Amino acid sequence: MVRAKVWILKKHFEGFPTHSNFELQEVELPALKNGEVLLESVFFSVDPYMRIYSKLYMKEGEAMIGSQVAKVLESKNAAYPVGAFAVSNSGWKSHFISDGKGLLLMFPSWPEKLPRSLALGTIGMPGLTAYFGLFEICRMKPGETVLINAAAGAVGTAAGQIAKIHGCKVVGCAGSDEKVAYLKSIGFDEAFNYKTVSLKEALQKASPDGYDCYFDNVGGEFSSVVLEQMKTFGRIAVCGAISLYNDVVPQKGPYVQTHMILKQLCMEGFVFSRWENRREEGLKQLLKWVEEGKIKCHEHITEGFFNMPAAFMGMLKGENIGKAIVKA
Amino acid sequence: MVRAKVWILKKHFEGFPTHSNFELQEVELPALKNGEVLLESVFFSVDPYMRIYSKLYMKEGEAMIGSQVAKVLESKNAAYPVGAFAVSNSGWKSHFISDGKGLLLMFPSWPEKLPRSLALGTIGMPGLTAYFGLFEICRMKPGETVLINAAAGAVGTAAGQIAKIHGCKVVGCAGSDEKVAYLKSIGFDEAFNYKTVSLKEALQKASPDGYDCYFDNVGGEFSSVVLEQMKTFGRIAVCGAISLYNDVVPQKGPYVQTHMILKQLCMEGFVFSRWENRREEGLKQLLKWVEEGKIKCHEHITEGFFNMPAAFMGMLKGENIGKAIVKA
Repeated sequence: MVRAKVWILKKHFEGFPTHSNFELQEVELPALKNGEVLLESVFFSVDPYMRIYSKLYMKEGEAMIGSQVAKVLESKNAAYPVGAFAVSNSGWKSHFISDGKGLLLMFPSWPEKLPRSLALGTIGMPGLTAYFGLFEICRMKPGETVLINAAAGAVGTAAGQIAKIHGCKVVGCAGSDEKVAYLKSIGFDEAFNYKTVSLKEALQKASPDGYDCYFDNVGGEFSSVVLEQMKTFGRIAVCGAISLYNDVVPQKGPYVQTHMILKQLCMEGFVFSRWENRREEGLKQLLKWVEEGKIKCHEHITEGFFNMPAAFMGMLKGENIGKAIVKA
Repeated sequence: MVRAKVWILKKHFEGFPTHSNFELQEVELPALKNGEVLLESVFFSVDPYMRIYSKLYMKEGEAMIGSQVAKVLESKNAAYPVGAFAVSNSGWKSHFISDGKGLLLMFPSWPEKLPRSLALGTIGMPGLTAYFGLFEICRMKPGETVLINAAAGAVGTAAGQIAKIHGCKVVGCAGSDEKVAYLKSIGFDEAFNYKTVSLKEALQKASPDGYDCYFDNVGGEFSSVVLEQMKTFGRIAVCGAISLYNDVVPQKGPYVQTHMILKQLCMEGFVFSRWENRREEGLKQLLKWVEEGKIKCHEHITEGFFNMPAAFMGMLKGENIGKAIVKA
């Protein structure tokens, strides 16, 4: 018998999350049926989407949503042998039973030298988000200028490096000088701390001609300023809106339509799962770039399943550089 | 010697235009040089874009921008014989001299029974705007539901009928019961007066499943309500933002990003001139549909060049059904 630890959403978030929103429970897992596997979570992902999806798709008392890298402990399913690693979307659970549905085996050829946690970051959802957002939504072309905000985050660091590989000029914004230094170290052409500058002036200085592509992880007021700096026929990939997720009263800002018309801008919201049928293509390309050293990966690792809520809140506060991971 | 009457933008608009923004002047036109033609304006167009473009592209003291159907009175250019009709973008001028640049001869086969003013409406810029906006920006597909606001205007009436021809369900909003009755008479499946209903409830009632395409002529608060009623992967063609053009202090509203992401919406601003190389294709198709009776054209005609400002302001107030035209 295995007792699983599970982080429950005790109470829906109201404003910025606090420890009182979560509760740690223990659940006894039943014996395996045929076709099932028992897994132990090894690495967890904490991501901004959890803040907004919880409100839309979860009930209080349910396990927090989220994905993990997990190891098969017991198996009654030949497709998932004991010792295999898989990526799963099973929530904040130390152990769980799966019938294999939605369980994605990690590449058997996963390189020894790469931590498996990257399957939750650059070689996982955040990397795919950057990849499809830039190629399919921004439709970036070599020589164009790409703006990325929350650039030091999991998606932003991947996006900036992918845009560089593709021959774009890349401008990144982040919220601390340490992050800005990191962005420059991984090849961003320009980077600045939006908290210590006039955003408008910094954007103009970093690219006086404006921006062809804007990979938006922030939304809100930040995006209103960027809109004025877009070039005609600019493309905006709306990936996240972290500046809005914790609103109790929705913020307001200037309407977008006049700028959209005058510059003939295209703004599109997207979720990486739209390209589910190209997941393998994306992951293989990302893995290749990482192995070739063309994409550098930084992880912000919090130790201990017990610290999941703290890691989640820290990520929302922007404490991480690169991917925020919890090591079980 | 011809003396041309010219409406000047005396003072930039500040809020809603008034008569004091305009001044009528007379200008003596010089003798024609080789390659030039003298034209007399026959029909003028008044359009919402003039309100916003004036601020961006005009100086005080210049002739108001705008297009006309004009007749060649004298010619030293064989391409434009005396008596020919052309569409020009020469501003609010009773007469003007052209070297032929930007002068578009009307189809020699223009049907006798159709007023030439349609070249400023359904078989002109507004019709092309509707055509390219629906096919290229909304990428409408037969069976989809298309929402159009300011639907009784020049662009809206064309858009609704084109969407019907393409096999869509069409919902239109307008600002009077008379306009709503007109929309129903030309085939809109659903139409309502947004001034006398709850917009949200009316949109839900007209299409409980939501909207695939939104052809937006209004922007602002209206669009914020529509955003919530879009289907996943909905497309928004931002053609105009008449609710915002007269702002002295920019209005504010909820940010769009969260909806854009969760429903993976695509919003794109556009101007018909993007498809300049397909103008003839578009005009021929529109003319064909009009001749076949598949598109009905309504014009709101103001008599007299002297009344240009009044016609312009009336159009901005929504006094017209169909295309607002001034007959010189």
